[in-house]
Amino acid sequence: MATAILYELQGLQDRRYSQFSWRTRLALAHKSVAVAYRPMRVSDKGAIAFSGQDKVPILIDEAGTAIADSWRIAEHLESRYSEQPSLFGGQAGRAFARFINNWTDRTLVPMAASMLMADVAECVDPEDATHLRTQMEKAFGKPLEDLRDGRDVHVKEFRRALDPARSSLKIQQFLSGAAPAYPDYILFSLFQWARIVSTFDLIDAGDLALVGWRDRMLHLFDGLARREPARTPDR
Amino acid sequence: MATAILYELQGLQDRRYSQFSWRTRLALAHKSVAVAYRPMRVSDKGAIAFSGQDKVPILIDEAGTAIADSWRIAEHLESRYSEQPSLFGGQAGRAFARFINNWTDRTLVPMAASMLMADVAECVDPEDATHLRTQMEKAFGKPLEDLRDGRDVHVKEFRRALDPARSSLKIQQFLSGAAPAYPDYILFSLFQWARIVSTFDLIDAGDLALVGWRDRMLHLFDGLARREPARTPDR
Repeated sequence: MATAILYELQGLQDRRYSQFSWRTRLALAHKSVAVAYRPMRVSDKGAIAFSGQDKVPILIDEAGTAIADSWRIAEHLESRYSEQPSLFGGQAGRAFARFINNWTDRTLVPMAASMLMADVAECVDPEDATHLRTQMEKAFGKPLEDLRDGRDVHVKEFRRALDPARSSLKIQQFLSGAAPAYPDYILFSLFQWARIVSTFDLIDAGDLALVGWRDRMLHLFDGLARREPARTPDR
Repeated sequence: MATAILYELQGLQDRRYSQFSWRTRLALAHKSVAVAYRPMRVSDKGAIAFSGQDKVPILIDEAGTAIADSWRIAEHLESRYSEQPSLFGGQAGRAFARFINNWTDRTLVPMAASMLMADVAECVDPEDATHLRTQMEKAFGKPLEDLRDGRDVHVKEFRRALDPARSSLKIQQFLSGAAPAYPDYILFSLFQWARIVSTFDLIDAGDLALVGWRDRMLHLFDGLARREPARTPDR
């Protein structure tokens, strides 16, 4: 069997920090698809010019088809590897995954990015750091370090926004129920990104439902996520 | 076939304004279960003392079993009427419904309540209005009319919080996919409540994805929700 190829972002010390790439990594593991990685910097647009766009992750599947965008990759994996365990769990599950994808990207990611982007800038090469800083400071209207300074306060709003996930995880092991599926990979990708780039914990240590779930996620697939070198190796 | 009985809140001019009751009403229609209503005021606790608790809706199913709490009622209907169309769509769909239930109750309902509770107080009998006002002004720390005065501004945050639902509804007819299911009933119940108690529209008229979806929901089951007398009959 041929191997799929995943183009993904690479930081200093080979950190694979992209949360969108982690969604795909976990989806590939869920489908038992072997994968080889092609790490690149944000500034290396040339490496992915073949895809006709400039965003990673990009998956080249075993037949050579290229797909960009983590959501589209998940849908592609679901149909191409339909004999493997489902990423979604039927039509209602797909609607759930779509909702969690949008909820994460539109509600949680902007808040988390404001708190952690100064840390990200320390974890990538200088050219990428400049690119990130320019883009993010324009979006947020403030220096990244100012945003980082306020995070002990702002994290409270972020943790409140996690209420619906916390409520589910108090009565079931995973967001998707008794077993993990793509909604779990989406939400977890945010915390895996945080673990790789920062020492700041987005989750309160006493928040047992979320801490327990994150720990279960870290140990899935023989510790795929846990094995990744992280700035906070003990969580 | 016996008929189920639903205890639910009743306002002035027989308005059936409880959003939690609307979740159950739509779930019953989805399962084609005939129902008779027992309207009551918040102050009429005596009418439901048999249930051992003081919240409505309460469903008495066709076998005489009493269940309180709209979520527990939905789970009960799903298992008791398993030969009817599913409210959830499998385990992943149930996890989706649970998430939407918590997201609606914890993120959206508090914002909507702060904007509309002054209107609710005008739609219920004086004793219920006093009860509501005392409870809500304690929770929000402000007179209900002050909260209402600020709603043109605060509604923006509420509409932003709807982003994940809006994103889904731009590419599919219902939150649950091609057909409505319990997640749709949960979210819609908030807008049905608003339509019954207030002239203020929580959804911007130009927000076509949400406006179109709400209109589809109003017309389900031969216009079950649309037929209900409302303070805003034209939406």
